[in-house]
Amino acid sequence: MGRDSEDEGVDTQEAIMRATYRALCKHGYANLTMQAIADEFDKTKGVIHYHYDTKETLLVAFLEYLLDAFNENIAVDENEEPETRLLTLIDTLLFGPPERGEFDHWELMVALLEVRSEAPYNEEFRRQFTHNYETIEATLVAIIEDGIDRGKFRDVDPQLAATLFLTALNGARIYQVALRRDDVAQLTRDGLEAIIDDWLRRSDASTDR
Amino acid sequence: MGRDSEDEGVDTQEAIMRATYRALCKHGYANLTMQAIADEFDKTKGVIHYHYDTKETLLVAFLEYLLDAFNENIAVDENEEPETRLLTLIDTLLFGPPERGEFDHWELMVALLEVRSEAPYNEEFRRQFTHNYETIEATLVAIIEDGIDRGKFRDVDPQLAATLFLTALNGARIYQVALRRDDVAQLTRDGLEAIIDDWLRRSDASTDR
Repeated sequence: MGRDSEDEGVDTQEAIMRATYRALCKHGYANLTMQAIADEFDKTKGVIHYHYDTKETLLVAFLEYLLDAFNENIAVDENEEPETRLLTLIDTLLFGPPERGEFDHWELMVALLEVRSEAPYNEEFRRQFTHNYETIEATLVAIIEDGIDRGKFRDVDPQLAATLFLTALNGARIYQVALRRDDVAQLTRDGLEAIIDDWLRRSDASTDR
Repeated sequence: MGRDSEDEGVDTQEAIMRATYRALCKHGYANLTMQAIADEFDKTKGVIHYHYDTKETLLVAFLEYLLDAFNENIAVDENEEPETRLLTLIDTLLFGPPERGEFDHWELMVALLEVRSEAPYNEEFRRQFTHNYETIEATLVAIIEDGIDRGKFRDVDPQLAATLFLTALNGARIYQVALRRDDVAQLTRDGLEAIIDDWLRRSDASTDR
């Protein structure tokens, strides 16, 4: 193993993460064993143990990897108008990024749902999910504050509005993923658009959309 | 076993359900083995196998048991005004029932969160969660339709508004349970109240609250 250059180490870790992802999609979280991961990996099980000495260490690194992929999927253009940015973020969180990234959005959502169900029992998972939550929350608060500053949005409490959007989006993703209720995302999208139009937007503001 | 009267059979099943609940709270879903359940049960493991021949059969019965408890926790008084019923349902879903039932609301939420993470892989779980979703959805739609009929609420699309409330409530529960973000429930409550006051309620309707 000592022969691995740093680059090769990164590539190997990336390969282990991809193997873990494939194993998770195939077997589900409850059956995600080191053996199941090794079966998806083209080197020996020893190589996995060299990089991650316990299953927990591997899963913590894996969650970070999933959340990075998630964050790449939801990046928004900061030059757009607040209302456009808000609707783009809503659409991306509900329907996935317009240009499909490396990961299928829904496979990623199912994977994250499963890892999150362990969060009440795992402090490190909770720390990472909380960071993810706070990142999206801060993005929403910034968009809403910008809309208020520009006179486009009513003078609502940005934190309160951000929480409402974030919980609705998260709840919709969960229902869609867990229950395969494909109509929930579209209904939530329409509901949030109605809230933006009739509650958040100043009735005297021009629409630039 | 043949000596069990029907009542004793029901009592035994109830005892197995309680043992499963204790085992789940103690070990988490991923570690919920038949042995872990048997360890919480005061009869032999054979009695569990007599009533439920596989772990899956037991877990399907257990989910039904959890959802029944959940439905008991969220019952609303149909004689109240629509807005009061809506706020009561919101409060109950966010903070648990005013009079604590047999189950601690948050323990129950954690348990349901974990079982639900398996729903994408389990058709019977999905069927039960979908039924639960549709029950709460129908309750919300009925309250909103009633509010519109009585001239208290604006003429919104009841299905769309119900989905928005339901996804926000579900998302808030998930964040609170999984991330232990205790502020999310209150922020969501305040956000939904603002939506009811400034979007759903007719501005010319009297408030009976």
